[in-house]
Amino acid sequence: MSDKVNSKTTVVDCSVRDGGLINKWQFDDNMVKAVFQAVNASGVDYMEIGYRASEKMFPPGEYGPWRFSKDDKILEIIDGEPLNTKLGVMVDIGRVEAEDINPAGDSPLSFIRVATYLKDVKKAIALANLIADKGYEAFINIMAISTVNDFDLEAGLAEIEKHAPVTAVTVVDSYGALDGDNVRHLVNVFKNSLDKKKVGFHGHNNLQLGFANTIDAIKAGTTFCDATITGIGRAAGNCPLELLLAHVDNPQYSIDPIFQVIQDVFVDLRKKIEWGYLLPYMITGMLNEHPRVAIALRNSKEKDDYADFYRKLTTPECYSN
Amino acid sequence: MSDKVNSKTTVVDCSVRDGGLINKWQFDDNMVKAVFQAVNASGVDYMEIGYRASEKMFPPGEYGPWRFSKDDKILEIIDGEPLNTKLGVMVDIGRVEAEDINPAGDSPLSFIRVATYLKDVKKAIALANLIADKGYEAFINIMAISTVNDFDLEAGLAEIEKHAPVTAVTVVDSYGALDGDNVRHLVNVFKNSLDKKKVGFHGHNNLQLGFANTIDAIKAGTTFCDATITGIGRAAGNCPLELLLAHVDNPQYSIDPIFQVIQDVFVDLRKKIEWGYLLPYMITGMLNEHPRVAIALRNSKEKDDYADFYRKLTTPECYSN
Repeated sequence: MSDKVNSKTTVVDCSVRDGGLINKWQFDDNMVKAVFQAVNASGVDYMEIGYRASEKMFPPGEYGPWRFSKDDKILEIIDGEPLNTKLGVMVDIGRVEAEDINPAGDSPLSFIRVATYLKDVKKAIALANLIADKGYEAFINIMAISTVNDFDLEAGLAEIEKHAPVTAVTVVDSYGALDGDNVRHLVNVFKNSLDKKKVGFHGHNNLQLGFANTIDAIKAGTTFCDATITGIGRAAGNCPLELLLAHVDNPQYSIDPIFQVIQDVFVDLRKKIEWGYLLPYMITGMLNEHPRVAIALRNSKEKDDYADFYRKLTTPECYSN
Repeated sequence: MSDKVNSKTTVVDCSVRDGGLINKWQFDDNMVKAVFQAVNASGVDYMEIGYRASEKMFPPGEYGPWRFSKDDKILEIIDGEPLNTKLGVMVDIGRVEAEDINPAGDSPLSFIRVATYLKDVKKAIALANLIADKGYEAFINIMAISTVNDFDLEAGLAEIEKHAPVTAVTVVDSYGALDGDNVRHLVNVFKNSLDKKKVGFHGHNNLQLGFANTIDAIKAGTTFCDATITGIGRAAGNCPLELLLAHVDNPQYSIDPIFQVIQDVFVDLRKKIEWGYLLPYMITGMLNEHPRVAIALRNSKEKDDYADFYRKLTTPECYSN
């Protein structure tokens, strides 16, 4: 019973990149290879395989290979397979240097997305220009979008529209705090502020709205939709790729390889690391807070003391910390 | 970041009734008492505490007390507590007899809901009349709504409008197959066919849309919204009560007692019985099928062989069984 949505909807898998936020990107090569092969076979348009970061800033070993996503490592994963899916990475402002990014002609990657807070949009524009100059398709993702006001947002988007050579700008609901009305409003602000760039959407599932918000974003005019296999991702996780592919219902996509990799890889992975709707994440989403306090709770002995957690978070002296 | 929705939204908890479909209503009294006390303290309007069924048709012992929900058992649970929440039960056509229903004046219950398939709507109307004659507020829930066509549905709703003394008629997405567009369409069909009765909505979470569809139903004009604590319910479960209360944002409701009962009761319960989004339920929802085949899979050795399950379900010779 799926909508027949805009056939131009473009799907971006970020299973390894966002999933790695759970375990510092300590996935073994077999997992990453299985995800790459499934996504590549499914006809998904883009795959963000990890972050690109400087090894000066994150000690390798403590952080797994997909914090760095080096070109030679990616070539090992591709292993000669013809690419149906464009491969890319995400970069954070101040955590990557120009020397970490080879010219696109020397890399298996075709796109790079810059993740930024709205306050750093000028830095994001500079980085997007560096990326485009090196020959990659560039994107900007604006994080924590539920915490910005329209006035500042419109000013930032106007800067991007004028100065950033990007294909799309993505609404990122980092806190999983948005509902359908919020999504429609934000997509409209983005559309009205951007003339030559498309709009993207990246949802989180704190309120069990990751998928629903993605549908609403598509209806409101979003083109680039982020999703992850089984919703793997930090805290409550993301819009599940399998739901999005079933919904978009474009003959380009095959859902079978995604079901297969869930059966083969994600059933076991879920026994080792945790993601998805849990009450502490619901509570931070409801309060429009970063999930870090809920993640800390889940790593403590009080992991299931949800009501106590809620009372603590909504008590003024806790907020003042 | 919740909508300020229609303040007349009326919340119906059915945690014990729908949750009991998982374990044949074998909940111990402490669990049911804790749920009753939390719901009653939260200001939720209605609580459906179980099914009312004839002991001639279901052997007690094999089925727990909430398959029958006898008045004396309910009085034990209430234990003298003043009622803020109206208590009621659900009845199925052909599984209850007139003698199983005491006059309302002799019962702690104030409402009874009739669950029916559209084809049995005349039987449902007869049962609703019997219930109303005994002094209860009556409702009709139309199950498996994703499998009926508008022509038959409008005819059935016209019969209910004319002949059934019910407060509301509820859209029941038994297969968890509806998306927002489907919900809006069905709520409009109900509203157009019903003049003197209100509309209800009961979602399932097969496509992670249980809560989102409930929001869409409210926006489309639904008054009575079903929900369960943590979404407990058969297969993928239901719209979580905690999300609905946070969203409706009516000062009548207090979410704290719901968080507390989740911490005290549902954390342990979830270690014993299974509900929520899992791939087999997503697959039956996507295919607009009853979840029974997925439930059977989860009770088999092949419980995690999702891709095999999907291939089997979408192979013609399997469908012909």
